[in-house]
Formats: sequence, structure tokens, C-alpha cells
Amino acid sequence: MLVLPLTPTDPRWVDVALSDLDAVHRDHLHCERKAAQSALSLVRSYPEREHVVAAVARLAHEETAHVVQVSQLLARRGTAPTYDLGDDYAAALREHVRKREPERLLDRLLVFALIEARSAERLALLAAAIPDEATAHLYAGLASAEVRHRDTFLELAAEVAPDGWEARAAELAAHESALVAALPLRPRIH
Amino acid sequence: MLVLPLTPTDPRWVDVALSDLDAVHRDHLHCERKAAQSALSLVRSYPEREHVVAAVARLAHEETAHVVQVSQLLARRGTAPTYDLGDDYAAALREHVRKREPERLLDRLLVFALIEARSAERLALLAAAIPDEATAHLYAGLASAEVRHRDTFLELAAEVAPDGWEARAAELAAHESALVAALPLRPRIH
Repeated sequence: MLVLPLTPTDPRWVDVALSDLDAVHRDHLHCERKAAQSALSLVRSYPEREHVVAAVARLAHEETAHVVQVSQLLARRGTAPTYDLGDDYAAALREHVRKREPERLLDRLLVFALIEARSAERLALLAAAIPDEATAHLYAGLASAEVRHRDTFLELAAEVAPDGWEARAAELAAHESALVAALPLRPRIH
Repeated sequence: MLVLPLTPTDPRWVDVALSDLDAVHRDHLHCERKAAQSALSLVRSYPEREHVVAAVARLAHEETAHVVQVSQLLARRGTAPTYDLGDDYAAALREHVRKREPERLLDRLLVFALIEARSAERLALLAAAIPDEATAHLYAGLASAEVRHRDTFLELAAEVAPDGWEARAAELAAHESALVAALPLRPRIH
């Protein structure tokens, strides 16, 4: 069992999110899009790693289904998607990705694992708190998908660096925790 | 019925493609990846157009399935994916995309429709020529998916510019025909 240490989200985030759920859903649409794009970027960068290609192409297939599901949710709620507000969370994490290979691949996989892990945690918090049953059910399903995606990235990281991935995962997870503590609480996934 | 005029591919292309089918499949993997990425780029650029978002997110979901299928085909053939060799065909078409909206959206939709149409034509040619039955069957299925995707982009183009899309489609199709005639015949999809 691969473990990724994650500090829990400040419980006040749930109240902030519930105070403007439409904003959360609009942000979430872009999170799912970017998750698919990130997975496809690995196909572009590491085509010769067949196992990576097969795994992340499947993952992108699921993430694109989530884009469809979240766009349907927005339509049901009568709220139109808006432009991506940017993601200083993901951008700050990407700054820790080393430039040289194979460290670069390892770091990209671990950063993606962390983003999936944090997303999974927050989607599950939303699933437990959202009053509307259909939306809560959707978010519970998406949360378990993100847990599987976290594990996919961790398994790939363990293949790429069997001896070094755990220490590096702990380092990056510490950066992620510091980052989450420093970012304002806002009605977004991150 | 929306029509997109397309000059037929030089029949000698099929022989060139059959002479190095592995190279065609390796190129094809990246074509499917880029098709998914292009569709997702429209979600990023035009989130407020809910109908576009829903349609292209579904399309990206299918394209990512094709990435999985082509990666499985490569694995069956014992050939590893390689780096994307670039795509001067798509790059040359993109040069015709106008900068101002809403012309820009119309042109992007029509360029994507043309790429899907050309891909569909060539995948169907391969399906008819590839001796291996399973591969031919896969390509026939992918060709019909690309025909549907062409129609999706044309339908969106017709929604965006009900009066002007056909004239612009004819212009861009003429550029595409000139481009295809000018490019060398090579073991790639385009």
C-alpha cells in the first residue's frame, strides 16, 4: 500500500465552499480539464515509457468524463461556466519539479499524485456537506476516482524510482502542506 | 446535412503508409492525443459557450479512448511509441485562424473539422488496405468516430456563424487541399 501523507484541510474551508457552491463547481470544471491535459502532457513527454502512456491515457479518459459530468451539473444548476481563474496552488507545486530527467518525471508524477490526493480529500468533504443528494452523490463518486488516480500516479512513481520515490514524496507533501496552510480559504477546489 | 468539400488523398499515400505501418501508428497515437488536447483547449477558451463545452468534452472523452486503443495496438505490434515528430500540416492550417472573436472560434472549429475529415478519410483508406484483420477493424471504427467528430465541429460552426460558416469552410477547405497537395507523401496520418 503506497502512502502519501497529507495534512487535513482546514474545516472552515467547507463553509467557505458551501457559501458559493456555484463558484466551486465552475472552478472544478477547469480542474478536471487541467487534470486531463496534465495526463496527456505525460504522453507527449514520455511516449517511450509504454506503461506510463497506457496508464495516463486511461486516466485522461476518466477525467474527460468528469468534465462532461461537471458541465452537466452546472447546466442543471442553471449556472454557466466561466473562465479559469488560474491555479496558484498547482503553479506553486510545479515550481518544485526538478529540471533534469529522470528526476523531472518522478516529480511530475508525485505533484500530480498530490493534486489528486488533495482534490479527493476536498471532493469527499463536499460530498459529506452538500445538501442536494444528487450533487453529493456525484462528488462522492468523483472523490473515489481521484483516490484511484492518486494511486495510479504513486504506482508509476514507484516504478520510475523504486528506491527514492518515498523520500521525495514526503518532501513534496511537506511543501504541499505548507502551501495549503498559506493559501486563503476560498470557494475553489484548491 | 453539413458538407465539407475535401480533395481525395493521393492513392500513392496508402502504399507509403503500408511500407511503414509502425511509423503510421506511432504518429497516429500523437494525433489522437492532440485531438483530445485541442478539444480541451476549447473548454479553456470558451467556457461561457455551454453547448461547445458539453460537445467538445464528450469528443475529448472519445479521443482519449482512441489514445488507449492505439497504445494497445502499438503494444500488440511490439513497437514502442516515440516522440511526436511535430505536425506541419496542423500548424499550417492553424495559421489561417483569424485573431479576432467570434471569427477566431469559427475558424478553430472549422480547422478542427477539416483535420477530423482528413483523418477520417485516411483512416478509412488504411482500414481498407491493412492486411491484419483486427487492425483494419480498429481503423474502420476510428474512421467513423472521426466522421462524427467532423460533424460535431461543423454543427458547432453552424451555430456560431449560421450565415457565414459555409463560405468560410469552403475557403479553409481550399487551403487544406493546397496544403495536402504540397506536403510530401509520408508514413504519417497527415
